[in-house]
Amino acid sequence: MGKTMRNLLLTLRFLGGRYCGFQVQKNGLSIAEVVQDAAEAVLGHRPPIKGCSRTDAGVHALGFGLSLKTDNPIPAERLPLAMNAHLPEDVAVAACVEVPEDFHARYSAIAKEYIYRIHNSPCRHPFWEGRALRHGPTLDVAALNEQAADFIGRHDFSALCSAGSSVENRVRHVQSCRLEREGELVTFTVVGDGFLYNMVRIMVGTLLDIGSGRIPPGSIPDILLSGDRRRAGHTAPAHGLYLSRVFYPGMDTGSIVNERS
Amino acid sequence: MGKTMRNLLLTLRFLGGRYCGFQVQKNGLSIAEVVQDAAEAVLGHRPPIKGCSRTDAGVHALGFGLSLKTDNPIPAERLPLAMNAHLPEDVAVAACVEVPEDFHARYSAIAKEYIYRIHNSPCRHPFWEGRALRHGPTLDVAALNEQAADFIGRHDFSALCSAGSSVENRVRHVQSCRLEREGELVTFTVVGDGFLYNMVRIMVGTLLDIGSGRIPPGSIPDILLSGDRRRAGHTAPAHGLYLSRVFYPGMDTGSIVNERS
Repeated sequence: MGKTMRNLLLTLRFLGGRYCGFQVQKNGLSIAEVVQDAAEAVLGHRPPIKGCSRTDAGVHALGFGLSLKTDNPIPAERLPLAMNAHLPEDVAVAACVEVPEDFHARYSAIAKEYIYRIHNSPCRHPFWEGRALRHGPTLDVAALNEQAADFIGRHDFSALCSAGSSVENRVRHVQSCRLEREGELVTFTVVGDGFLYNMVRIMVGTLLDIGSGRIPPGSIPDILLSGDRRRAGHTAPAHGLYLSRVFYPGMDTGSIVNERS
Repeated sequence: MGKTMRNLLLTLRFLGGRYCGFQVQKNGLSIAEVVQDAAEAVLGHRPPIKGCSRTDAGVHALGFGLSLKTDNPIPAERLPLAMNAHLPEDVAVAACVEVPEDFHARYSAIAKEYIYRIHNSPCRHPFWEGRALRHGPTLDVAALNEQAADFIGRHDFSALCSAGSSVENRVRHVQSCRLEREGELVTFTVVGDGFLYNMVRIMVGTLLDIGSGRIPPGSIPDILLSGDRRRAGHTAPAHGLYLSRVFYPGMDTGSIVNERS
């Protein structure tokens, strides 16, 4: 008789600056690789892991969902501390819960929340170096929120998808999307049922280009309708982007770890 | 005829992890040294600089006040960007204003605000590594605030001063002192007219020791009266501590930079 196979959902936090992204790649260290190393050290076998998303090189996470199967009987609540002892400083498991056998960190996700942090100041801030995009000219957050509202809804987001994506259906539902200012820090928060390649970074780049006058206000509906990547704004750099939470039926990784920042 | 001597107040932000403190020392790199290097590169002479405080090794700052005199005519508002180009990533000038000739970053200060960040979780958080003290057991912030209130007022703080201080008058006025929780992050904020050697770190250590039961609740008035360092709690580590703002007549460095975090 085999031992019972368990399915575990781990919530991961990481600073992505040193990594080539979540997925294992030939050139460069991936988040998946260091997580598998730690899982192997604790569980005694190297489990395949399912990530909620392929994050790009340099992207950070506050509530990344990851599932793995194991027959090791370690209590779920002990796994974070046990694995953290084997993870580098910039990656940590924040929580672990047992989930049904057919749960999959990616396919079970019903929505995701990303945030993009902008340090809106002409002066460098050591605390946000590598953790927020620095943007000198003062952003008019109220005016940009009027623009950002045009992203909300079910649209074909082809115009906000970088070349290189093989995804065919590019219709996504953006449920909410707004900017908030707290002192010099402007945070863009977007929730949607799915995101195309670089979509959040192009949303941010488009808003910044509207702010700087490179793209006229009111253009977003036309940009979406055009389906033309060249009409949208630039791709904002990776180091401001955070996968902040993943929503699963009945729970989300943000509420599991009870903290967003 | 000599050129006019100007007096400038600079507001500095730094991550203190790599430094031996503000003051120049034989063993180790100081904040003062890298600031003087940058000032020399921009101003063409190496000005003596007056810091608002000697911060310890490893302590961070969000609004450190520093004054220097120069006859260089560079507009004050240009100095931050010019100096930042010559400063390492973990130190930056956030603001610069012209001040009267007799202004001194230390002696003109009427009060200072420190914050101490505690990441209150059993699990490591990559974002707070080196920037907050990690403390596993859940802190009862409301209960600790009742204790912290006993620090408020004009007291002899000898019991909360590390050995090695040569200061004779140890009476200080703590104007406010409280903890706040935001998710897993607990922030201790204290404003006072002056602080003794390690005083804020011992205040935090004492509160944590009350939280863990090592010191009984209600002890703070007696500890203060005793003047006995051994009665107070441990010295919390430097990496959670931030000098957040310095108050000068008519202004404070926090409002100059318009941001606290």
